[in-house]
Amino acid sequence: MKVHPDCFPCFFRQAVIALRLSRAEERFEAVMKGIMPELLKADFSKSPAHATTFMHRRIREILATDPFKKVKSDYNRLAMEACVRFSEAVSSSDDPLFTASRLAIAGNIIDFGIFTSVDIGATVERALDGPIACDNYAAFRKEIEKAGGILYLLDNAGEIAFDRTLIELLVKMGKDVTAVVKGCPVLNDATMEDARETGLTDICRVVDNGSDCIGTILDMTSPGFRNIYEKAGLVISKGQGNFETLMDEGKRKNIFFLFQSKCEVVSRELALPLKSMLLKRL
Amino acid sequence: MKVHPDCFPCFFRQAVIALRLSRAEERFEAVMKGIMPELLKADFSKSPAHATTFMHRRIREILATDPFKKVKSDYNRLAMEACVRFSEAVSSSDDPLFTASRLAIAGNIIDFGIFTSVDIGATVERALDGPIACDNYAAFRKEIEKAGGILYLLDNAGEIAFDRTLIELLVKMGKDVTAVVKGCPVLNDATMEDARETGLTDICRVVDNGSDCIGTILDMTSPGFRNIYEKAGLVISKGQGNFETLMDEGKRKNIFFLFQSKCEVVSRELALPLKSMLLKRL
Repeated sequence: MKVHPDCFPCFFRQAVIALRLSRAEERFEAVMKGIMPELLKADFSKSPAHATTFMHRRIREILATDPFKKVKSDYNRLAMEACVRFSEAVSSSDDPLFTASRLAIAGNIIDFGIFTSVDIGATVERALDGPIACDNYAAFRKEIEKAGGILYLLDNAGEIAFDRTLIELLVKMGKDVTAVVKGCPVLNDATMEDARETGLTDICRVVDNGSDCIGTILDMTSPGFRNIYEKAGLVISKGQGNFETLMDEGKRKNIFFLFQSKCEVVSRELALPLKSMLLKRL
Repeated sequence: MKVHPDCFPCFFRQAVIALRLSRAEERFEAVMKGIMPELLKADFSKSPAHATTFMHRRIREILATDPFKKVKSDYNRLAMEACVRFSEAVSSSDDPLFTASRLAIAGNIIDFGIFTSVDIGATVERALDGPIACDNYAAFRKEIEKAGGILYLLDNAGEIAFDRTLIELLVKMGKDVTAVVKGCPVLNDATMEDARETGLTDICRVVDNGSDCIGTILDMTSPGFRNIYEKAGLVISKGQGNFETLMDEGKRKNIFFLFQSKCEVVSRELALPLKSMLLKRL
C-alpha cells in the first residue's frame, strides 16, 4: 500500500495530536519544521506507516518525550475495566472464539493516531453487534484449530486488553501463543510496559520486535523477531498499521488481519465503507 | 493572526483540493515535495494566508495550470442564477442595506480552499435566516451613509455575484464604489475575469491589487492599489483571508469585515462557534 494524497493532512493531524498530548503546542514550529524534511526524504511508493515512522521518531526527538505515554496508560486501565464486562459475552457465547475475535476487532477502535478520545464502552458495544464487512472467520477458525503455535502481532495500548481476552481463549484451547509488542514507543502502539500493565505477560510469551515502526516493517525489525516470524505457521495481525505494512506478505504467509478501517485511504483500498470491521485473509 | 498547529492539516488539504480539481492526483508527490520547502521557509508569526500564498504559487507552477479556473467559472454561473432569487429579498426588504449585507456574508460560504462543493441555494437560504454572531450593522450603516467613496475588497469567485447585489445598492445610494480583485489567480479568489463574468465591471470601477496573495498582504500589493487603499475612507473587506491579513489594520483604518468563520483556528481566535456570520469592526 502506497502513500496517497489524502495521507498528508492526516500526517500533520498526527503531529498536532502528538503536540496536544504533550501539552507542547507552543513548540509546533520546531515540530512542523522538523518533520517536513523527514517527509521530503520519504519514499511514497512505500506504505504511509513507513513515512510516519520517521516522522514520529523526529517528533519524539524534538519534544524529548513520548507524547502518548500517559494516554496509553490511561487507556490500558479504561480498557481493562471495560473488558471485564465484555469478557462475560465471550464465556456465555455459543462460539466463544467468534465473540472473542469480534471483541479484539472492536478494541482496535482505540487509536490515538486517529482519534483524540474514545468512549470505549459505547464503541465496543456497537462493534460487538455490528456486521463484519470482510469475514473470513470460517477459515480463521479452521487454521486456529490445526495450529500448534500462533504469532499474535499486537497493535495499540488499551486495545491489548481486548486482545488479552482472545489470547486467553487461545491458550485455553492449548495453543502456544507468542504476542509481539513494539521495541520502542511509537504513537500509542503497545510496548512491553503495556503488556505488563494489562497482565498479558502473565498469560503468554511476549516478545518485542526490536523496532519503533508503525505496523511491522520487516526489514526494520530485529533479527530475533524475524526468526520467530519466519517460523510462524499462523499469524494474527492486529490493526491498520500492520495491515498496511504486511499486506504484501498476505500471499506468502498464513496471516489473518483483524482490524477496523479507520481512514478513508485504507477504506478505499479495501473498497469498504469507513469504519468497517474486518477479519481478513488475503 | 499567526499560523496555528491546526493550520497544517488544512494547508495540505488545500493542496489535495488543488490536485483533485486539476485532475492531477497522480502528480501528488511533486506537489507535496514542492510545497514543503515553501512551508519550511514560511514565517509562522505571520498569517496562515501568508504561508499559503507561497504554497499555492508553487502548486500552480508545478501543475502549470490554475487548478481553480473551471470551478470559479462554474460557481460564478451558479451564484448568478441563485442571486436572482435572493435579490428579490433585498428589494422587498424593510432595510435593503441590511438584507444585501447579509446576502454578501452568506455568499462567503463559497470557498474552495475549504470545501469541495457547495449547495449555494440551500446554504444561502440558511445564512439569510441565521443570526449574525458579531453584528456591527448599526455602525456600518452610519459609516456608509456618511461615506462618499467605498473600497470593497472582494474575496471569492461565485461569492462576487452576491457582492454585486450589495454593490448595486451602494451605487444606487450614490456611493462611489471601487471593487478590488486579485492581480493573479490564487485559490478561488476573484480576478478581473470573474468580475467581468458576473457583470460587476458594468456597475462599478473594478481594480486589481497587483498581487496573488490570499487575502490582502499590503506590502505585496501594487503601489497603485496601495495608493487607492491609503486614500479610502471606508473599506468593506470580504472573507476570512482578508480578515486574517488585515485585522492589524482594523485599528488604523475604517474597515468592516463581512465574512463567515470557516475554520476552527479563526473561530477560536474570534471566540465564536465555527460557521459564524460576522459583520465586524475591530
